[in-house]
Amino acid sequence: MDRFDHYVKMVENTLARQDFDLDPIELYQPISYILGLGGKRLRPAMVLAGCELFGGNLENALLPSLGIEVFHNFSLVHDDIMDDASLRRGKKTVHEKWNTNIAILSGDAMLVKAYQYIAEVDRAKLPAILKVFSKTALEICEGQQMDMNFESRADVHEDEYLEMIRLKTAVLLGAALEIGALIGGASAHSAESLYDFGVNAGLAFQVQDDLLDAYGDPQKVGKKAGGDILQDKKTLLMIYAQDLDESGYEALQKQTLSGEEKVKAYCQFFETCGAKAKAEAKRESLLKASLEALEEAHGKDLVLKEQLAQFAQWLSHRDR
Amino acid sequence: MDRFDHYVKMVENTLARQDFDLDPIELYQPISYILGLGGKRLRPAMVLAGCELFGGNLENALLPSLGIEVFHNFSLVHDDIMDDASLRRGKKTVHEKWNTNIAILSGDAMLVKAYQYIAEVDRAKLPAILKVFSKTALEICEGQQMDMNFESRADVHEDEYLEMIRLKTAVLLGAALEIGALIGGASAHSAESLYDFGVNAGLAFQVQDDLLDAYGDPQKVGKKAGGDILQDKKTLLMIYAQDLDESGYEALQKQTLSGEEKVKAYCQFFETCGAKAKAEAKRESLLKASLEALEEAHGKDLVLKEQLAQFAQWLSHRDR
Repeated sequence: MDRFDHYVKMVENTLARQDFDLDPIELYQPISYILGLGGKRLRPAMVLAGCELFGGNLENALLPSLGIEVFHNFSLVHDDIMDDASLRRGKKTVHEKWNTNIAILSGDAMLVKAYQYIAEVDRAKLPAILKVFSKTALEICEGQQMDMNFESRADVHEDEYLEMIRLKTAVLLGAALEIGALIGGASAHSAESLYDFGVNAGLAFQVQDDLLDAYGDPQKVGKKAGGDILQDKKTLLMIYAQDLDESGYEALQKQTLSGEEKVKAYCQFFETCGAKAKAEAKRESLLKASLEALEEAHGKDLVLKEQLAQFAQWLSHRDR
Repeated sequence: MDRFDHYVKMVENTLARQDFDLDPIELYQPISYILGLGGKRLRPAMVLAGCELFGGNLENALLPSLGIEVFHNFSLVHDDIMDDASLRRGKKTVHEKWNTNIAILSGDAMLVKAYQYIAEVDRAKLPAILKVFSKTALEICEGQQMDMNFESRADVHEDEYLEMIRLKTAVLLGAALEIGALIGGASAHSAESLYDFGVNAGLAFQVQDDLLDAYGDPQKVGKKAGGDILQDKKTLLMIYAQDLDESGYEALQKQTLSGEEKVKAYCQFFETCGAKAKAEAKRESLLKASLEALEEAHGKDLVLKEQLAQFAQWLSHRDR
């Protein structure tokens, strides 16, 4: 994925040129810190890919791509407070390193900074791009709220779950691509198709995430298998298992299992009741939908289009 | 102030037409709730005033005016978390009525909604208006951080204090007027002059706030006198007192006073050392600067211009 590596480098270089060494330092240091923790920069890279797919000048997409990355990091800072998470990418979360007030406020400042970067586009394109961005930002708040609501519910249905992951994570990938496409001069139809590509690929990515948590190789995934199972987290596997064999699921829940034994029992149950196969089939149908949407995006750069297809394949089938 | 009453009614009517009855309700109910608590709607009214001053159509300023009000309420929701405040306008704060996570997230959603409303302007004017809004939003975060920093500092200087209140509260009044002026078709010079008018009037308002807390009529102000003194809050009076008579100030601080006795001792000291007179003089010079800036705004509607001048007078000399 050479082109994508190149995009990531461009994003990193653009980020390195930004000055967050401002007063009051308590507001700006956390911004530098969280952006400096790294991450794959997939989302900003997708802004650049969307732009180049339609023959746009990448220079025009650099600051908006940073807007997407800063927005993503804003959501991480605030989500980490809400989820009471102490680590992010192996380092202290902002509210742990500083405090909750600073994490709230520097997160707010990041949301504003994200808008400032997004607004650095051709004025003719600004209204459409801003509309996509605000709609997406609001949806991500909705997704986070749905996710929090699910924690206290036993009866989450497949469609609600898919809607939650669509809002919480998939739409940002779609919006990154659509904004890039609009900057690159795509037609409305092509830009929307690229959005659909990104959303479906993002959904497939999340379904694969659920599968990896249960069945991934801990060496490759980088964390112990079964974290979701041990936390009784609602995942697509859990929801399918409950749907496919409710009595078996309830019997399993009544058992007092813990640790590896619990993980093993659930993984086995997901296989025997067909939940694993159903999740895999769902992932494949989402991947298929994403590739069909990609076909509808009439981009000029066919090599890049093929790389985007491979990227969706990778998101869906990654083992790490 | 008939015109302003009319603006406030228009804002209320526009607000009443918005639909916040959306899912997930945990995200949207707090938005309805905080916006429904009332408030004077001064800031959105100033958007309408700015627009009409230059002969603009008020219809074009209604949704952006709501953007300013929603933004203001977003900042209240997040500030109330940071300040651990339990009441807002006599009712429970959002984090008290729901919880902190909901207050963080619905606040975030409000900031996005504010941008959506602000973006409802003529596309030719969008870049300039967005620029003013984002700059102001970031400054307000900076002001809140400075305010939090001051809590743990004994050596706050006048210029730092004035900069803090400028950022935390005055710039939003300025931005409301400037955005209205831009919608109404003002020249850049006039729009910026109106901004300066608003910022200086906002500063005078805050200085008067400090004076009212110490010397206001509790019946009129609606709260006990001396709240700031009892909380050892840094106000302009405290800063001037420390500047004008440091040894007297330190001697006063060493006394173990409390309640009304403490309030009385500080109020007397502010008078004898000249801090009260200095704060009043500062307020007057800010009011003068605001009126001079207003003169530079070449608005068409001279009756409204006179009302804006009276408004600044009222902000500076109000007794409640």
